[in-house]
Amino acid sequence: MKKAGVLGATGSVGQRFILLLSDHPEFELSVLGASSRSAGKRYEDAVVWKQTDLLPESARNIIVQECKAEAFKDCDIIFSGLDADYAGEIEKEFVSSGLAVVSNAKNYRREADVPLIVPIVNPEHLEIVEQKVKSGQKGFQICISNCSTAGLVAPLKPLVEKFGPIDLLTTTTLQAISGAGFSPGVPGIDILDNIVPFISGEEEKMEWETRKILGGLSEDKMECRLVSEDAMKVSAQCNRVPVIDGHTECISLRFERRPPPSVEAVKQCLRDYVCEASKLGCPSAPKNTIHVLEQNDRPQPRLDRVRDNGFGVSVGRIREDPVLDFKMVVLSHNTIIGAAGSGVLIGEILLKKGLI
Amino acid sequence: MKKAGVLGATGSVGQRFILLLSDHPEFELSVLGASSRSAGKRYEDAVVWKQTDLLPESARNIIVQECKAEAFKDCDIIFSGLDADYAGEIEKEFVSSGLAVVSNAKNYRREADVPLIVPIVNPEHLEIVEQKVKSGQKGFQICISNCSTAGLVAPLKPLVEKFGPIDLLTTTTLQAISGAGFSPGVPGIDILDNIVPFISGEEEKMEWETRKILGGLSEDKMECRLVSEDAMKVSAQCNRVPVIDGHTECISLRFERRPPPSVEAVKQCLRDYVCEASKLGCPSAPKNTIHVLEQNDRPQPRLDRVRDNGFGVSVGRIREDPVLDFKMVVLSHNTIIGAAGSGVLIGEILLKKGLI
Amino acid sequence: MKKAGVLGATGSVGQRFILLLSDHPEFELSVLGASSRSAGKRYEDAVVWKQTDLLPESARNIIVQECKAEAFKDCDIIFSGLDADYAGEIEKEFVSSGLAVVSNAKNYRREADVPLIVPIVNPEHLEIVEQKVKSGQKGFQICISNCSTAGLVAPLKPLVEKFGPIDLLTTTTLQAISGAGFSPGVPGIDILDNIVPFISGEEEKMEWETRKILGGLSEDKMECRLVSEDAMKVSAQCNRVPVIDGHTECISLRFERRPPPSVEAVKQCLRDYVCEASKLGCPSAPKNTIHVLEQNDRPQPRLDRVRDNGFGVSVGRIREDPVLDFKMVVLSHNTIIGAAGSGVLIGEILLKKGLI
Amino acid sequence: MKKAGVLGATGSVGQRFILLLSDHPEFELSVLGASSRSAGKRYEDAVVWKQTDLLPESARNIIVQECKAEAFKDCDIIFSGLDADYAGEIEKEFVSSGLAVVSNAKNYRREADVPLIVPIVNPEHLEIVEQKVKSGQKGFQICISNCSTAGLVAPLKPLVEKFGPIDLLTTTTLQAISGAGFSPGVPGIDILDNIVPFISGEEEKMEWETRKILGGLSEDKMECRLVSEDAMKVSAQCNRVPVIDGHTECISLRFERRPPPSVEAVKQCLRDYVCEASKLGCPSAPKNTIHVLEQNDRPQPRLDRVRDNGFGVSVGRIREDPVLDFKMVVLSHNTIIGAAGSGVLIGEILLKKGLI
Repeated sequence: MKKAGVLGATGSVGQRFILLLSDHPEFELSVLGASSRSAGKRYEDAVVWKQTDLLPESARNIIVQECKAEAFKDCDIIFSGLDADYAGEIEKEFVSSGLAVVSNAKNYRREADVPLIVPIVNPEHLEIVEQKVKSGQKGFQICISNCSTAGLVAPLKPLVEKFGPIDLLTTTTLQAISGAGFSPGVPGIDILDNIVPFISGEEEKMEWETRKILGGLSEDKMECRLVSEDAMKVSAQCNRVPVIDGHTECISLRFERRPPPSVEAVKQCLRDYVCEASKLGCPSAPKNTIHVLEQNDRPQPRLDRVRDNGFGVSVGRIREDPVLDFKMVVLSHNTIIGAAGSGVLIGEILLKKGLI
Repeated sequence: MKKAGVLGATGSVGQRFILLLSDHPEFELSVLGASSRSAGKRYEDAVVWKQTDLLPESARNIIVQECKAEAFKDCDIIFSGLDADYAGEIEKEFVSSGLAVVSNAKNYRREADVPLIVPIVNPEHLEIVEQKVKSGQKGFQICISNCSTAGLVAPLKPLVEKFGPIDLLTTTTLQAISGAGFSPGVPGIDILDNIVPFISGEEEKMEWETRKILGGLSEDKMECRLVSEDAMKVSAQCNRVPVIDGHTECISLRFERRPPPSVEAVKQCLRDYVCEASKLGCPSAPKNTIHVLEQNDRPQPRLDRVRDNGFGVSVGRIREDPVLDFKMVVLSHNTIIGAAGSGVLIGEILLKKGLI
Repeated sequence: MKKAGVLGATGSVGQRFILLLSDHPEFELSVLGASSRSAGKRYEDAVVWKQTDLLPESARNIIVQECKAEAFKDCDIIFSGLDADYAGEIEKEFVSSGLAVVSNAKNYRREADVPLIVPIVNPEHLEIVEQKVKSGQKGFQICISNCSTAGLVAPLKPLVEKFGPIDLLTTTTLQAISGAGFSPGVPGIDILDNIVPFISGEEEKMEWETRKILGGLSEDKMECRLVSEDAMKVSAQCNRVPVIDGHTECISLRFERRPPPSVEAVKQCLRDYVCEASKLGCPSAPKNTIHVLEQNDRPQPRLDRVRDNGFGVSVGRIREDPVLDFKMVVLSHNTIIGAAGSGVLIGEILLKKGLI
Repeated sequence: MKKAGVLGATGSVGQRFILLLSDHPEFELSVLGASSRSAGKRYEDAVVWKQTDLLPESARNIIVQECKAEAFKDCDIIFSGLDADYAGEIEKEFVSSGLAVVSNAKNYRREADVPLIVPIVNPEHLEIVEQKVKSGQKGFQICISNCSTAGLVAPLKPLVEKFGPIDLLTTTTLQAISGAGFSPGVPGIDILDNIVPFISGEEEKMEWETRKILGGLSEDKMECRLVSEDAMKVSAQCNRVPVIDGHTECISLRFERRPPPSVEAVKQCLRDYVCEASKLGCPSAPKNTIHVLEQNDRPQPRLDRVRDNGFGVSVGRIREDPVLDFKMVVLSHNTIIGAAGSGVLIGEILLKKGLI
């Protein structure tokens, strides 16, 4: 069993990390870090637990620590659910203290030598970590992608692998409120009988992260290389909708190749996709990475978000698009494959690859 | 005062017609038609009234008639909220009996000599009616557009008038449930904490109707001419969302002209637009046809749907689009400018033009 | 026109005050007070306006003041939407500076010489103010009741007047989220697909305020006298539900008199009730104070909350109760008759009575 | 493995039966019955599956039968999710054909020799079945209680056992929409931003069923004996709320005994309660029959409805009541312990008792 530390343990992402790790076959909850307001308390007393599952017994009595690397030095891996306001400095200290940090925060996503990972999509970017470990470096940083990016890139990856570059890509998102956390998150008065057609910074993240995740590595495998803005134009329109969990995205895309593949070929490609994490036998990896749905009114967040415990992505309504080549609807679980779940699955891949 | 008949008076669109006409300065509720189940009853007894406004006194005691032209022969105008299952035959009988029918049903929208009207957009298509009236024809049919089409074309019209053709257009809709009517409409179990990414026939309607509404007339002004599919490619993705009233649409468009206008020119064009109904002084016409919003999180359906009593359209987040030229968010009130309200405003225009 | 000042002008209650006063026939918006963070700005720049009506022109350019009495000295009346954290000291300073303060805050509700007013229920308690004014006192404090209390006491008042004391009273509330304000108010994550069976302090307020509002005055009319806890036992269970506006209450009551009146007599009593504000001709007073609904599935918040612009209360399902005498469902608009609207109507009564 | 038949297999209760039985250690899905419209089709083709879990493999290919006893003659037990319109005749035919029927329909609940069972509450009423079986009767009928009754009686049973009769009982319910089924169930337009303060027949069911379930048996153990209306007065007020699953009930009760027990004694009694199904080791029985929650804002349906897979009941806010003795909030999962889950757990008890 590997020892896992969780940063930001009382927040919404931290709580999800704790749920996913509490019963995990390979990791054990070891150290929990939170703000100085919580430090010194039993976790049960420090947290306002807001999950549908009960607070796990294994976490209840752990004494919360401040987020200083010293307290986490025996951890094999650190999962960070810290807010961006705090993640920058704290994670830097952890990495420079030789710790392996998998973070949900946005702070280091744009660093060329930090892999930005959706574990069912681009685990090959962990090669950067492999290079670092080989060269004797102990601490390293890995970033989890933005929640809405994760759903978007899941079907794109097999399509690009099979049919070559996508040069135009649009997505309009209908995003669940759980992504905004608890305090305060999205006010009820803003989201009952309403839509908010704006999520700060989200469109920029989606447009940029997609090009990093679908990009390759430098020749020395020390850095990520983005798909250029010219090679792939990405446009996102992001909306917050009255849904608890599950981001729905209406996407449209054009392949560079003419003529494009058939609708049936696109569907088959998605059905056939088996992510590397599944091949490696990671315990959280989905049985079915992409569920291709044929009913015309699916996927729906309430019905489809928990496929493969939230690690699988559902794609429906794959059809030709009068403007680009294809349009389709993608659904992913924003707090599992879009956040903490991705973190844990990244940890499992690191373990399989001997990087922790 | 012109005498107005309402068909489908007990349904959701019919109820809205009755509300809008009950206090109207130019029309008076004269005859109400519904199914044989309701015929013979006082309106109050026939209807399950589901509006936030009380059932108007003026409608309460009207005895409901069957939908036969004979009973409506003294009406100057007929507003039809009939379901498509019934509208076909009934409206045909009404028109051939010499009545002026303004219908919310889809049945005759695709007829070349039937104007498909969004009254704040293309009242010039009523020229067809003018030709018919001039030639001595008494009955005629006018169709109200689909609810989601109405919101889409509102900003397009002034843009095309000023900047020339739009050749690519995409829209992803987040549509309110009131558009689906009452019995049963959208089941609660399908729409609480959920999105349904499909509305039967809706995408086809939007893609086709847009090309009719933005198209011109034949030389003899007897028929509509569609913008060709080659000249303007339109792609719609339609979603039902947990919102009572107000369709939100994330649209993206490209002008034929290179270079395209500036963002500021686009905004100014929309701000400057005054629809003909307003110029004519129609009582229901919006003061401000298009509200251009500058706050980055607007328009929102709950806050913005009632601008100009639901006859105005709100447009926000106008910005450059990495894939096409511009993206923006459009909000329109689906039961007002998207249905019964459009019908009434068409009636007002007909009256101003002396066509009824 | 009387000059009105508004305290807490940027908050949710303050915004409602501004809407109600902006077009008022007797009051004009004169001074707006808010925190020092907002002071010195134009109101439009200081506020995050979250109403479905547009920010009124008359308020847009008013320069926000700090909440010091000096700036409000020319006001004839002060409407306070201040949070309880600030209301205590600020309102005290205003009253001692000779100003008439009508407050939505809870701070002074329990003072014996402060009338706690639901204007459609107990305006006779303003006699205390009359005594003060007669005795030459200039400043005085009036409190608006808690939002859920307002709905509860509306039907109780005519019943007690006609049938004598109610000795047992229970209410289970289903309260809208708008009552919790904006920042943050009720988090969306807590209220979508959910109920929160607790509102801090609410049950105690309802149980106590009801006994004050239905109570009388001391002999010298200088103080309120509560109905004793022995004479009327009140039990409240308060829930927050996913509704924007409108508090629904399932109430049950027993009269002291045996046998109790008939169901029909109870209904007739409520139908016949005309509140004093209506008799005085106050512009905001409801035409129909209590709407007695006969359909078995009403009142419903979305359909019935705006009766008489939110100043009327709806009561339905009046029927015998196997445990007490009668049960019924009461609906009131929490931000109108339950908050700012009550404040304005109190102001109108004060004016009619010559107290401002 | 016992062979189970399901009637009404395509409906909402039927789908839940299939989910609960598909992986069951003691029952196997054997025959599925539905309307003649579905009969002859593979289950997968006959059903519009609307569960968050995927349609179980084991049910997918079963050919749906008409609801005639002949086709079910090899079944050891029949679970009926039929609508009341059909349940009457069909279940009668099944019982008279010698089959054991556990039904969710209301039709036979009021028959004195038909046990009305909440399996975590009154399995001792199955004694009637035992008598029938002993006497050689083969077919018998058992009814599952109404969904909202199930939650109500769960905490009452241990309280009455320990502290003696409850003579006054009130409950105001906030009921989830899943209880109303799919076609159409509760229309979305009725329940978004709304409350419906009426559910047809529900209050009468709760008031009557509670007295049957908490009652005893006749001396010969052949019939149920109700608690008389004089001995226990029950009053219910039922509301439909915008919640998917989970009925919340605000209840209030008075014990006959004076003085009543303390709040702490009431809590301890509920905490200590272990239902017979748990003692018998039934696989679906809850580990913890009643979860007594101490946080003041719990139970909440979204967070607490799945305790013990929906077979446990949560009780919170236990406190003194100014009008009766105690008030508290009860939450139960309406489609599990309130419907299909109860049916399955009744089946498990029958099996443990050797009655099937």
